Amino acid sequence: MRVIADLCIVPLGVGLSVSKEIAACERVLSEAGLKIRLHAYGTNIEGEWDEVFAAIKRCHEVVHAMGAPRISSSLRFGTRTDRDQTMDEKIRSVEEKLRA
Amino acid sequence: MRVIADLCIVPLGVGLSVSKEIAACERVLSEAGLKIRLHAYGTNIEGEWDEVFAAIKRCHEVVHAMGAPRISSSLRFGTRTDRDQTMDEKIRSVEEKLRA
Amino acid sequence: MRVIADLCIVPLGVGLSVSKEIAACERVLSEAGLKIRLHAYGTNIEGEWDEVFAAIKRCHEVVHAMGAPRISSSLRFGTRTDRDQTMDEKIRSVEEKLRA
Amino acid sequence: MRVIADLCIVPLGVGLSVSKEIAACERVLSEAGLKIRLHAYGTNIEGEWDEVFAAIKRCHEVVHAMGAPRISSSLRFGTRTDRDQTMDEKIRSVEEKLRA
Repeated sequence: MRVIADLCIVPLGVGLSVSKEIAACERVLSEAGLKIRLHAYGTNIEGEWDEVFAAIKRCHEVVHAMGAPRISSSLRFGTRTDRDQTMDEKIRSVEEKLRA
Repeated sequence: MRVIADLCIVPLGVGLSVSKEIAACERVLSEAGLKIRLHAYGTNIEGEWDEVFAAIKRCHEVVHAMGAPRISSSLRFGTRTDRDQTMDEKIRSVEEKLRA
Repeated sequence: MRVIADLCIVPLGVGLSVSKEIAACERVLSEAGLKIRLHAYGTNIEGEWDEVFAAIKRCHEVVHAMGAPRISSSLRFGTRTDRDQTMDEKIRSVEEKLRA
Repeated sequence: MRVIADLCIVPLGVGLSVSKEIAACERVLSEAGLKIRLHAYGTNIEGEWDEVFAAIKRCHEVVHAMGAPRISSSLRFGTRTDRDQTMDEKIRSVEEKLRA
């Protein structure tokens, strides 16, 4: 089962800047071979369900290991059985309607 | 790693009422032995990380099998290494402050 | 336009316990005359759109005033034009399917 | 109060493709003079609190007017009092850590 997800990790107890922890998660997701794209309030992730969620678990483990005693994340995730759809196709589909 | 999560599943293509699909997910989560509590915009879930996320995957599989070709879910999930905390303790902690 | 929402406020820079800030938001929402219900990962809110969102803004203002320099919140919110639906009805509708 | 938000609107009852409705929201947000950026699971929005939330309300109104009887949205939104921060700065901050 393919999934397109959007992950936002909020580490607590590491101060107000969390970009170091977000960058570490980018590396985790990227090294997991997933297609990802960072935006201003999270990261788009595309891949097989088990690989995506294994990488998300690894993100929490890594951010805890970096010194954050508490993490509160939010995730959107979508699956469909009618057809395959990539992140790029989702964006292109909206952009086509915008030009129409 | 223990996790407290909050899941909201939105099936598309099954009409405007989605309570049948939500109820099916409640059964999936409950049969997985997880501690859950339904609220008006999702379900609180408490358990071990792998069990919680295996059950969430099963929810998507079951809702697809019920006829929804597309599902868009949102999830909050929190982990902490400083101490264990249950769903009940989270609520009690806020309620104590409200009474103070 | 009526809305049913679910708010989770995460204050940064106030330490690992955030129950004091959550309790303050409960008071804000409650004093705004909204129907609310606390759960383990947020608060259900029911009311008129403008009143709900004015109260959510007030929550951010109050939590900043309590000393949190940064807040990251997540919100689910649903509207419908086919019929009115309360938080209680949403829950009852799922529970009926569970008993069926 | 400035806010950086991330909006994902899920219209129900309009079929499986929702790109037409998403495109309409892009137009609403853009015509409101907000800084926005579409990604694969939502739209980043930057602006003054009242303008951002007025535009989000308008999105729900417009999508209902397009024929969706039910909408379930999810939103992340962050405010900070310690300093101003734009969407571009948030991304740049993570990218700097990735290069380090």
